[in-house]
Amino acid sequence: MKDLIERADNLIEALPYIQKFQGKIMVIKYGGNAMVNGEMLASVLKDIALLKYVGIKPVMVHGGGPAISESLDRLGLESYFHKGLRVTDQETMAVVRETLVGQVNTRIVDYAGLAGTKAVGLSGSDGSLIVARKYFDGTDFDYGYVGEVDRINPVIIETMLTAGYFPIIAPVGVDQSGNSYNINSDLVAGEIAAALKAEKLIVLTNTDGILADKNDPESRISRLKLPEIEEMITSGRIAGGMLPKVKACKTALQNQVNRTHILDGRQEHALLLEIFTAHGIGTMIN
Amino acid sequence: MKDLIERADNLIEALPYIQKFQGKIMVIKYGGNAMVNGEMLASVLKDIALLKYVGIKPVMVHGGGPAISESLDRLGLESYFHKGLRVTDQETMAVVRETLVGQVNTRIVDYAGLAGTKAVGLSGSDGSLIVARKYFDGTDFDYGYVGEVDRINPVIIETMLTAGYFPIIAPVGVDQSGNSYNINSDLVAGEIAAALKAEKLIVLTNTDGILADKNDPESRISRLKLPEIEEMITSGRIAGGMLPKVKACKTALQNQVNRTHILDGRQEHALLLEIFTAHGIGTMIN
Amino acid sequence: MKDLIERADNLIEALPYIQKFQGKIMVIKYGGNAMVNGEMLASVLKDIALLKYVGIKPVMVHGGGPAISESLDRLGLESYFHKGLRVTDQETMAVVRETLVGQVNTRIVDYAGLAGTKAVGLSGSDGSLIVARKYFDGTDFDYGYVGEVDRINPVIIETMLTAGYFPIIAPVGVDQSGNSYNINSDLVAGEIAAALKAEKLIVLTNTDGILADKNDPESRISRLKLPEIEEMITSGRIAGGMLPKVKACKTALQNQVNRTHILDGRQEHALLLEIFTAHGIGTMIN
Amino acid sequence: MKDLIERADNLIEALPYIQKFQGKIMVIKYGGNAMVNGEMLASVLKDIALLKYVGIKPVMVHGGGPAISESLDRLGLESYFHKGLRVTDQETMAVVRETLVGQVNTRIVDYAGLAGTKAVGLSGSDGSLIVARKYFDGTDFDYGYVGEVDRINPVIIETMLTAGYFPIIAPVGVDQSGNSYNINSDLVAGEIAAALKAEKLIVLTNTDGILADKNDPESRISRLKLPEIEEMITSGRIAGGMLPKVKACKTALQNQVNRTHILDGRQEHALLLEIFTAHGIGTMIN
Amino acid sequence: MKDLIERADNLIEALPYIQKFQGKIMVIKYGGNAMVNGEMLASVLKDIALLKYVGIKPVMVHGGGPAISESLDRLGLESYFHKGLRVTDQETMAVVRETLVGQVNTRIVDYAGLAGTKAVGLSGSDGSLIVARKYFDGTDFDYGYVGEVDRINPVIIETMLTAGYFPIIAPVGVDQSGNSYNINSDLVAGEIAAALKAEKLIVLTNTDGILADKNDPESRISRLKLPEIEEMITSGRIAGGMLPKVKACKTALQNQVNRTHILDGRQEHALLLEIFTAHGIGTMIN
Amino acid sequence: MKDLIERADNLIEALPYIQKFQGKIMVIKYGGNAMVNGEMLASVLKDIALLKYVGIKPVMVHGGGPAISESLDRLGLESYFHKGLRVTDQETMAVVRETLVGQVNTRIVDYAGLAGTKAVGLSGSDGSLIVARKYFDGTDFDYGYVGEVDRINPVIIETMLTAGYFPIIAPVGVDQSGNSYNINSDLVAGEIAAALKAEKLIVLTNTDGILADKNDPESRISRLKLPEIEEMITSGRIAGGMLPKVKACKTALQNQVNRTHILDGRQEHALLLEIFTAHGIGTMIN
Repeated sequence: MKDLIERADNLIEALPYIQKFQGKIMVIKYGGNAMVNGEMLASVLKDIALLKYVGIKPVMVHGGGPAISESLDRLGLESYFHKGLRVTDQETMAVVRETLVGQVNTRIVDYAGLAGTKAVGLSGSDGSLIVARKYFDGTDFDYGYVGEVDRINPVIIETMLTAGYFPIIAPVGVDQSGNSYNINSDLVAGEIAAALKAEKLIVLTNTDGILADKNDPESRISRLKLPEIEEMITSGRIAGGMLPKVKACKTALQNQVNRTHILDGRQEHALLLEIFTAHGIGTMIN
Repeated sequence: MKDLIERADNLIEALPYIQKFQGKIMVIKYGGNAMVNGEMLASVLKDIALLKYVGIKPVMVHGGGPAISESLDRLGLESYFHKGLRVTDQETMAVVRETLVGQVNTRIVDYAGLAGTKAVGLSGSDGSLIVARKYFDGTDFDYGYVGEVDRINPVIIETMLTAGYFPIIAPVGVDQSGNSYNINSDLVAGEIAAALKAEKLIVLTNTDGILADKNDPESRISRLKLPEIEEMITSGRIAGGMLPKVKACKTALQNQVNRTHILDGRQEHALLLEIFTAHGIGTMIN
Repeated sequence: MKDLIERADNLIEALPYIQKFQGKIMVIKYGGNAMVNGEMLASVLKDIALLKYVGIKPVMVHGGGPAISESLDRLGLESYFHKGLRVTDQETMAVVRETLVGQVNTRIVDYAGLAGTKAVGLSGSDGSLIVARKYFDGTDFDYGYVGEVDRINPVIIETMLTAGYFPIIAPVGVDQSGNSYNINSDLVAGEIAAALKAEKLIVLTNTDGILADKNDPESRISRLKLPEIEEMITSGRIAGGMLPKVKACKTALQNQVNRTHILDGRQEHALLLEIFTAHGIGTMIN
Repeated sequence: MKDLIERADNLIEALPYIQKFQGKIMVIKYGGNAMVNGEMLASVLKDIALLKYVGIKPVMVHGGGPAISESLDRLGLESYFHKGLRVTDQETMAVVRETLVGQVNTRIVDYAGLAGTKAVGLSGSDGSLIVARKYFDGTDFDYGYVGEVDRINPVIIETMLTAGYFPIIAPVGVDQSGNSYNINSDLVAGEIAAALKAEKLIVLTNTDGILADKNDPESRISRLKLPEIEEMITSGRIAGGMLPKVKACKTALQNQVNRTHILDGRQEHALLLEIFTAHGIGTMIN
Repeated sequence: MKDLIERADNLIEALPYIQKFQGKIMVIKYGGNAMVNGEMLASVLKDIALLKYVGIKPVMVHGGGPAISESLDRLGLESYFHKGLRVTDQETMAVVRETLVGQVNTRIVDYAGLAGTKAVGLSGSDGSLIVARKYFDGTDFDYGYVGEVDRINPVIIETMLTAGYFPIIAPVGVDQSGNSYNINSDLVAGEIAAALKAEKLIVLTNTDGILADKNDPESRISRLKLPEIEEMITSGRIAGGMLPKVKACKTALQNQVNRTHILDGRQEHALLLEIFTAHGIGTMIN
Repeated sequence: MKDLIERADNLIEALPYIQKFQGKIMVIKYGGNAMVNGEMLASVLKDIALLKYVGIKPVMVHGGGPAISESLDRLGLESYFHKGLRVTDQETMAVVRETLVGQVNTRIVDYAGLAGTKAVGLSGSDGSLIVARKYFDGTDFDYGYVGEVDRINPVIIETMLTAGYFPIIAPVGVDQSGNSYNINSDLVAGEIAAALKAEKLIVLTNTDGILADKNDPESRISRLKLPEIEEMITSGRIAGGMLPKVKACKTALQNQVNRTHILDGRQEHALLLEIFTAHGIGTMIN
C-alpha cells in the first residue's frame, strides 16, 4: 500500500506541469538513430500517449537514415556523398520516399495505435504540407533531389489535432511540379514547430545534449541562449549532425516557439522527465 | 535519475485508466467526518485537480455534520433527534444552511482554487438544482425542515462542466414555495450521480468500506453486487450511517451509473488509488 | 376594457426602451438597507425577472450590513470600527462570509427562483471571480480582513449569462493564499460593471439619490457629470455612505460603462421606472 | 409618479404571459378588411414589434381583398364570381399578384420597419414556400387561377426567424410548372401555422369573433372546442367569410398548434389583450 | 461516344475557373431590356443555377423599365421626363413598385425556381436593405420619388446566401419616413456589389459592351482601366444609358470589388462564357 | 464563338446531375492496371477534381498489383501463388506495404495536388481505418499476411471530407497486434463504400464492364440486378479478377449504397461520362 501511495504522489507531482502545458502543441523530432529497436519505439509512443491524454497536443517528425541506407543496400544502390549530404538521383529518391513513408512512418503509426493513440501518418504531399525547393549550397553543385523547406501549410496538421489525432510526419517535400525531395528531418521539425507556433520543439537524438567539450561526454550544457548558440556554431564547437538540430531550434525560437530541447531519445521516458519534472535533462535552448 | 524514471513509470501505469475514464463524470461524496483537517482537504482537492487535468469531470457533493453541530452549539441551539434525524425548526434550518453554504462549501471551493482548479460552489437553489419535499417517515411525526430529493435539475451542473468548472454542491434543497430543507448528503450524491448518468459514484467516508463483520475492522468486503446489498440491509448487517451511503449507491446503479465505491476518505490519495490502480480499495458495489 | 387597453398602451410605451437595451448587461447593486423586508425583495426580483424576459442581462451584487450586524450580535461578537470600517478579525470574517453567502445570497436566489428566473448565487471564490487584497488606508493601521478588489475574473459571470442564468454575487473576495476578505459591496459592483463593460450600473439604496443640500431631502440632483462629482467629493458635499456608491459609478464610467444611476430601492418598481420610462428617477451620473 | 408606478405594474402583470410564450411561434392572419387605414396598421405592427422584443416569434399572413378590387377596377377588369370565389383568368391573376406582393405586402413591411422591426416580405415563390394546385369544387367548373395549398416548405420562414426577422407572407402560391394561384389567405395562414407547429394561430378580422346568433352582435362565444365547430358548420351557424377562418383553425389544431383565436383586428391592441391578459377577447378554439 | 468525350473535355476546361471562383459572390445586374422574352430569361437563370451549383454565390439586381412603361400605359398614366429621368409622383411610384416587386421580381424568382435554384425575392424594404434618399441634380428641380442609395444594409443578403438562397433584388429603396423611391437599377447593383465586397459585378445589358466609336458596333473595347473610363466620361464618349452602368462599375471597383463586366445579356450563355472561358466577351473594367 | 456556346451548353447539360449528386459521397476504386501511365492518372485526377468542385465528395481506394510485382522482382523476391492469391511472408508484406503506401499512394496524392485538389493519403493504420484479420479459405492453408476486412472505422475519412480533403486510401489493414495485411483492394473499396453509406461505388478497371459472353468483348451488359449477379457467379460466368469487383458491389448494395458501377478506367473521362451524362458506360449493378 505504501508503494501505491508513492505512485499516487508521483502523479500529483506532475500536476503543475500538466496544468502548465494543457492544450499546448509540442513538436517532437524523433531521429532514425534513436529508434533502434521496437521496444524503445513502443516506450516513446507510450510516453506520447500519456502526453495526449493529459491534454497536450503532440506532433512528430521522424527521420529514417539507417532504414534508408538499408533499403538502398538491399537494392545495391550506392550513394555518393558531397559535403555530408547524400546526392540523390531519381531512383534513389523513390527508394527514400518508399522507405520513409511506406516503412518508417507506417511502423510508427502502428506503434502509436498499439499504445492507444489515434494517430495519422502524413508526408509533405498530404494537403501540400511541406512545399520544397531544390537545395543549393551556394555553388553550382547539383545534389539532385535534396531539398529544403520552401513553405509549410500547417492546416492539415491543425485539422487533425482538432479532431483529436496525433500527426506523424515523414520529411518528404514536394515542389510545385510534383517532384519529391528528401529534406533533413531536423530542419523540417523546426519549420513545422515554427508554423504551428508550438510551445516546445523537442529533438530526440542519440546523444546526451550539447557538450561544452565535444570529447568529454560528461560536459553536457543544460541551458543555452540563442546568442551563445550562434557563437558556438561560429567557433565550430557545434558541428556535424548537431548543426541541423541546433538550426531547427533557432528557426523555432525565432518564430514564437517558447522553448526547445535536445535530449537523448534512448533514455527511458526522456519526454516525461523533460516535461513533467523540475529536473530537466539534455540541453534546453531558449 | 533512477528515481525519476520510476516516477515516469508510475505516470505510464496510470495511462490505461486515463484512457478508460477520459470525458466521464465522477460524482464524489465527501463526508463531513472525512474532512477533519485542512491538510487532508487540500490533499483530496489536489487529487481531484489531477482527475480534472487528465480529462475526467469530477462533481462533489459534501456533507457538514460536525460543522453544523459546532455552529448550533455556538448559538446555544439544542437539537432534538428522532430516529437518528435532527428535528429541524426554522431557526435551526437557517443555521444549517448558513453553515453548509457559507462556511463548508466556500471553504472547499477555496481549497480547490488553491489546487489550481476552476471550481464553483452550488446549492439546491442555484438553477433549481435540488427540488426538495418535506420528509415523512410513514408516520405523522413532523421532522420540520428535513427533506428528501423530489427532483434534480442537472442543467446547471452540465453547463458548468462544459465550461470547464468543477461543481461543488451543498446538500440544501428548496421546495416550490421557497422553503429550504436539510437533506442527507449521501442521498443527494446518489440522486445527482443518477441524474448525470455518471460513470462512478465514489463515497468518501471515515471507514474502510463495508465490513462482513461490523465488529471486525479487518473484514472489509472488496466487492458486492446489488442483490447482496439488499440482503445485508434486510439482515441488519448494513445499518446506521452506512445505510444512506448504500442507498445512494443503489439509486445510482439503478440509473445507469456504472460503478459505485465506498472508500476511506482519510486514506491518502484514496481517489487516485481507486481510479488509477488495479488495486481497488474500499468496497465496490455494482 | 378601457382599462385593459390602457395597460396594453403601457406595454407599447416601453417598446423603445426594450429595443434600446436588448442584449445589454446591467449591473444592479442592491444594498442591505434596501432589502428591508421580503415583500420589497420579491418586488425587486419580479422587476428583474421582467428585465430578463425582455432580453436584458441583469447581474446583481448585494450588500448585507444589517444581516451581518445581527449575526454578530447573536454570537456576542462586538465590532470595533475605525474610520467607519469594521475592523475584521478572522472569527468575524467567518461570520461575515457565512451570513453573506449562506444567508443573504441564498435568500435572494430563492426569491429570484420564485419570480420565475433561473438564478445562480456566486461569491468571490467561484471561478476566482473576485481576487482581493488587504486594504490599507495609507497608514499602518491593520483593519484585518477588510479587502479591496485586486482583479475581477468575469468569465464565470459571462458563462452564466450566456447559459441564460441571472448571477447574484456576494461581495466576498479571496486572495492568492486563500484568505477571505469583506469588501464594500458598492465598490465590488463598480468593478464588476467595469469588467463586464456593462451598459448601466444601477445602485439601489435607501435614499432618493444625490442631494444638492444634504439637509434638504427635496434637493435631489437628477443628472451629474463626472467632473461635477469630483468637485462634490472634494468639497465634502458627497460623503459618508454615498462616497463608495459614487466611486463605484466613477470606476464604471471610466471603463466604458455607459450610464450609472443611484436610486431609492424602496421605491416600488424603481428599476422599471428608470429603465422603461422617460421620467428618470434618482440621480444619473455619466 | 403614481401613474408611472401603475404603468410599471402593468408591465409586471404581463410577466407570466411573457414567460409562457417566450421563444414560441405565433402565426397572425391579418385580413384586408382589418387594415382599413394606416393608423390601424401602424398600431398592429407596434403590437407585433413588442411581441418580437419579448421573445415571441411572430409570422404574418395577410389578405388584400379590397386592394385587389380597387386595382381591378382601376384597370376596368370586371370579375365574375362563382359560389363566392373570384373566377381568375391570367390577366386578373397578374393584377392580383402585383397588388398582393407589390403593394399590400411591401406596405406592411414598411410599417413594420417604421415600428423598429426587422421584417422581410415573402410570397409563395420565395424558397418554394407555398406550393399550390388548381382548385376544383368537385364539379368540372373552372375557376381559373384559384388555387389551394398543396404543400408548405417552411424552411425559408424558419431561416428568417432564426436570423431574427419577422416574415410577412402574401398568399400567392406557385405550382410545379410556375403558374401562380390566388389562395384564400385564411387557409394559407392555417397551413403555415400547421407546418411551423406554431403555438398559436390568431386570425385578425373585422368581427368580434364567432356569434351564437349571427344576428346578435352581443352573442359572441368566447371559447369553442373542435367538435362544437364541426357541428356549427354542419348546421350552417358558421358560414360565409367565417368558414375559411374556422377551417384554418381546424387545420392548425389538427397539426399540433396549441390554440387558435379569431379576434377583431380593429380593436386597439387586440393582439396584446389576447396574449398578455387573462381577459381573452374574441373567440378561442382549441 | 466521341461527342460525349468532348463534352466531358468541356467540363474539365471549366475546372480552373471553378477553382478560382468557388465561394465568391458575384452581383449580376439584369436589365429590363435584356429580359425580352421568357426563353431568354429561362436561359440566364439556368446559367445562374450552374454558377450556384459549382459553389459561386450569385446575387441579382434587376431593372424593369419596359414593364413599368407598359403598366403606366395600361393605367393611362403619362410620365414626364426631365434630363432623362422619369419625374415620379406618388401614384406613379405606387405603380413602379407594384410592377417591379409584384410582377418583374416574382417572375424572375419563379424562373429561378423552375431552373432548380432556391431563390428569394427582396426589395429595399426587406431588412432595410436599400435605404434611399430623394435625388436632386444640384438644382431645385423636384423629380418626386426618384431616389438614390443612401446606405445598403447587406445583412439580409448575407443571411440568405449563407442559408443557400439566391437573392433577387428589386431596385426600390425606402427612406427613414417610409417613403419609397425608384432608383436606377445599375447604381443599386454597383452599391450592393460594393457593400458585399463581391468578386465581380456583371452588368447584363442589350449592347455588346463599350464601343470605341459609338457609331461602329464592331469597335467594342474588351478591357478598360478606371482612369480611361473617367476620361471617356469627360469626353462624352460614354453617355446615355451606358453612363449609370459605368458609374456602377466605378463604385464597385472603388470598394474592393475585383472586376466588373458589361456584357450583352441577349448573348446565349453570356455569363458562362465570361466566367468559365479564357475568351472574355463584352467589356471588362478593372 | 459558336464553339464556345456549345461548350457552355455542355456545362448546362451537366446541371441536373450536379443537382442530384451534390454533397454525396462517391467511392472510386482505381485499379493498378488502370493507372498504366502518368497521363491517364493525371486525367482521372482532373475528373475527380471536377467532381469535388461541383460539391461531390470523392474517396479513392487504389490497387497496385503491377507496382508490387516490380518491387518484388527488383529485390529478387519470388512469390508463390495459391488459388490465385500471393502467399505473403513477412518480408514480402514489408515490400507490399512500402510499395502501396510509399510509392503508389504518394504518387496519386501528388497527381491530385497537381490537379488542384487538397488530397490526403491514408492507409489502414491511420486512425485504425482498416482493421484486418488473417484470411483463411476454409482449409488450413496458410497464406501468410493475406488479410480480409474485419471492421472499417470511417471516422478519419469523414473528418477529412468535412475539412474539404480528398482521401486516397492504400488497401493495407492492421490487426489488433499490429500486424499488417495485404487485402484485395476491390473488397476494401466495397467495405469502405458500405461504411460511409456512399451514394455510389465506382470500380475503374481495365475491361469494359461485365460481359454476357466472356469471349465476346462486344457483349457488355449495361445493367444488372443483385440476384442476376448471384446467378452469374454461381454459373461461373463471373469469375477471375471480376469476382472481387462484383463482391465489392454486392457488399456496398447490401449496406445502403445506392448504385455501383464497373467501368473501364482507361476510357477517357470515364467518371464524368458515367456521372454527368444520361449515356451510362460500363456495367451498373443495383
